[in-house]
Amino acid sequence: MADQSTSPPLTRASVAEARELIRPFVHRTPVITSSSLSALASTSGQGKARPKFRLWFKCENFQKVGAFKARGAFHAIERLKKEPGWLAGGGAERGVVTHSSGNHAQALSLAARANGIPAYIVMPTISAPPKIAATKGYGATVIFSGSTSVEREAVTTKVIEDTGARLVPPYDHPDIVLGQGTLGLEFQEQVEAMMAEEGGEKTRGKKGLDAIIAPCGGGGMLSGVALSCEGTGIRVFGSEPSYQGADDAKRGYKSGVRVEAVSSLTVADGLRTPVGRIPWSIIYERRLVSGFYSVSDADIVRAMKLAYERLKVVIEPSSAVPLAVALYNEDFRAMVEQEAGEEGWDLGIVFSGGNVSLDALGKLFADGGVGDESK
Amino acid sequence: MADQSTSPPLTRASVAEARELIRPFVHRTPVITSSSLSALASTSGQGKARPKFRLWFKCENFQKVGAFKARGAFHAIERLKKEPGWLAGGGAERGVVTHSSGNHAQALSLAARANGIPAYIVMPTISAPPKIAATKGYGATVIFSGSTSVEREAVTTKVIEDTGARLVPPYDHPDIVLGQGTLGLEFQEQVEAMMAEEGGEKTRGKKGLDAIIAPCGGGGMLSGVALSCEGTGIRVFGSEPSYQGADDAKRGYKSGVRVEAVSSLTVADGLRTPVGRIPWSIIYERRLVSGFYSVSDADIVRAMKLAYERLKVVIEPSSAVPLAVALYNEDFRAMVEQEAGEEGWDLGIVFSGGNVSLDALGKLFADGGVGDESK
Repeated sequence: MADQSTSPPLTRASVAEARELIRPFVHRTPVITSSSLSALASTSGQGKARPKFRLWFKCENFQKVGAFKARGAFHAIERLKKEPGWLAGGGAERGVVTHSSGNHAQALSLAARANGIPAYIVMPTISAPPKIAATKGYGATVIFSGSTSVEREAVTTKVIEDTGARLVPPYDHPDIVLGQGTLGLEFQEQVEAMMAEEGGEKTRGKKGLDAIIAPCGGGGMLSGVALSCEGTGIRVFGSEPSYQGADDAKRGYKSGVRVEAVSSLTVADGLRTPVGRIPWSIIYERRLVSGFYSVSDADIVRAMKLAYERLKVVIEPSSAVPLAVALYNEDFRAMVEQEAGEEGWDLGIVFSGGNVSLDALGKLFADGGVGDESK
Repeated sequence: MADQSTSPPLTRASVAEARELIRPFVHRTPVITSSSLSALASTSGQGKARPKFRLWFKCENFQKVGAFKARGAFHAIERLKKEPGWLAGGGAERGVVTHSSGNHAQALSLAARANGIPAYIVMPTISAPPKIAATKGYGATVIFSGSTSVEREAVTTKVIEDTGARLVPPYDHPDIVLGQGTLGLEFQEQVEAMMAEEGGEKTRGKKGLDAIIAPCGGGGMLSGVALSCEGTGIRVFGSEPSYQGADDAKRGYKSGVRVEAVSSLTVADGLRTPVGRIPWSIIYERRLVSGFYSVSDADIVRAMKLAYERLKVVIEPSSAVPLAVALYNEDFRAMVEQEAGEEGWDLGIVFSGGNVSLDALGKLFADGGVGDESK
């Protein structure tokens, strides 16, 4: 990771610069809509709230490596290349390292390979074999460690000592935040263009989104999206699983103190992480996120199934969390009803990724899984 | 259906006119790419052929009602409205009728409702309850019949006698063919725009697709796409399941005689139909389709799984047929290797629809299903 002192300021303009840097390497993922799902969201609550929604979905599940993480990883590498002395000092030969068994591992591996840079990925020995295979498939060197964070960090430190590789953390760095935020800029532009094409009648004369809701794990993406909306009037909300305390950002936002540890086995496995310090400074200290809402694992799976049935997209459980909030969280729905009134809201929902095994899907769909309340 | 004597000529220009007519009512569905799937297609064969592919996917699974059928249905209604005397004679009050238990039933129901026109849908009593519910959900009147074509047609005739509704067949009519063909025009434009944005290096100086491969059931969509490509130099291929003789178009194309009946229980349930007369006149008599290729049900399910895993899209088995041909049909692969040479082909693949029940998916993914050769 480039030294933080060389990072651009955390502003919307810096997100726009990040976008230019990564443009050749990542997909401009499509935005899709669904009148049936918008209608359902406007009537689905079990409570009294009757908000009006028009939903827009930013499909980062179609991003390279199947998740938004490609944006941050490519940006991290581009920024490293610009750090004075890194290239000249042989940084590219020494490579990059991270500890992750998820989407960040694959994203960093891909970004490193695209630049001819070695990547070292520290993964727990117990990682699922397909994830190990996928990471190796992108050309990375996988190094195994124990499962605790202490064990992982010890192995990572050893790799850095042995190779001189630069650490690229998954979310707690300005360059990662700015990279992930690029999806927010695209989202805004795409909805504006789609509304312009549709004409005034359907869009009720509007010119863009009223709000965006995104999943929050480490908070790198959510805080980047929040930066991308600063000064636009678009409100940004975070969404989390409530299971076993995975709603750490929500609790921290309420108490004013960042929660530093989470131990949850929520089905939304990308969101088992506490919010990082730098994301927190944007989300909470600068108040660029307007609030947090959480949902049960059962509601997450219900929303995920609707995404498959109505939108025809493969998303991982973490991606279904903001949709579940829009459909089932009565606090959120009551807030939107009050704020948006008769007019309703054009709500942008971030589908963060689509990496879920067919085995896991099969279990959720055939056996009912955690969320199927119809059986 | 408008009287055929009032239909526009079967030309590319008429497809463009159809597109203007239906533009306000249907989605311009996204086109997606996947470098991993393109790489796999370029190496996946079990045989000697080593064609080079760059794959482009037209996602009609994101179309309204989850399938391209919305295009033909909306066009049929727009054309009816233009038929001299239909509106003035009370046609809109008498409505439209079809017999279908699939995507065409839902598409016609939606198009009729959008125009305030009654729709009568004749479905076999044994149809799956979710399909009946979905059709009713679009506001249609569902009328049950026996399962044989004789029984269905008798009931349909009775509905026409009773109501004066106009029959809208699923594929064997010029207005349907022209409506479905609109996806081909969009596909061409979208790939051209995406290539222009990427710049010359990645696209090797190309300006658009070399070929399109689409599924073939009744042939309405395939023949419409073929019309949309006439005079462009883009070659069009049909793809079918081989199971129990569902490769009727392939056999007919070879023998010179259209096969008029098919009785197959292929997993690609949208393709159990013989090619209609009007599609055949375009596909075979005018030779606007260059050839047909077929694949086993096992290969169809293998390709479907890859679409889920790599592309993150929900497609129905019928949609996976052209991808299965590109990946696994050695005749097709050898042909492409020979025709395309070192340069390779930019191949457009039509994902025709995404309507598959989660139950069916669960079985395919959890239990292995027909196509899982890894168990």
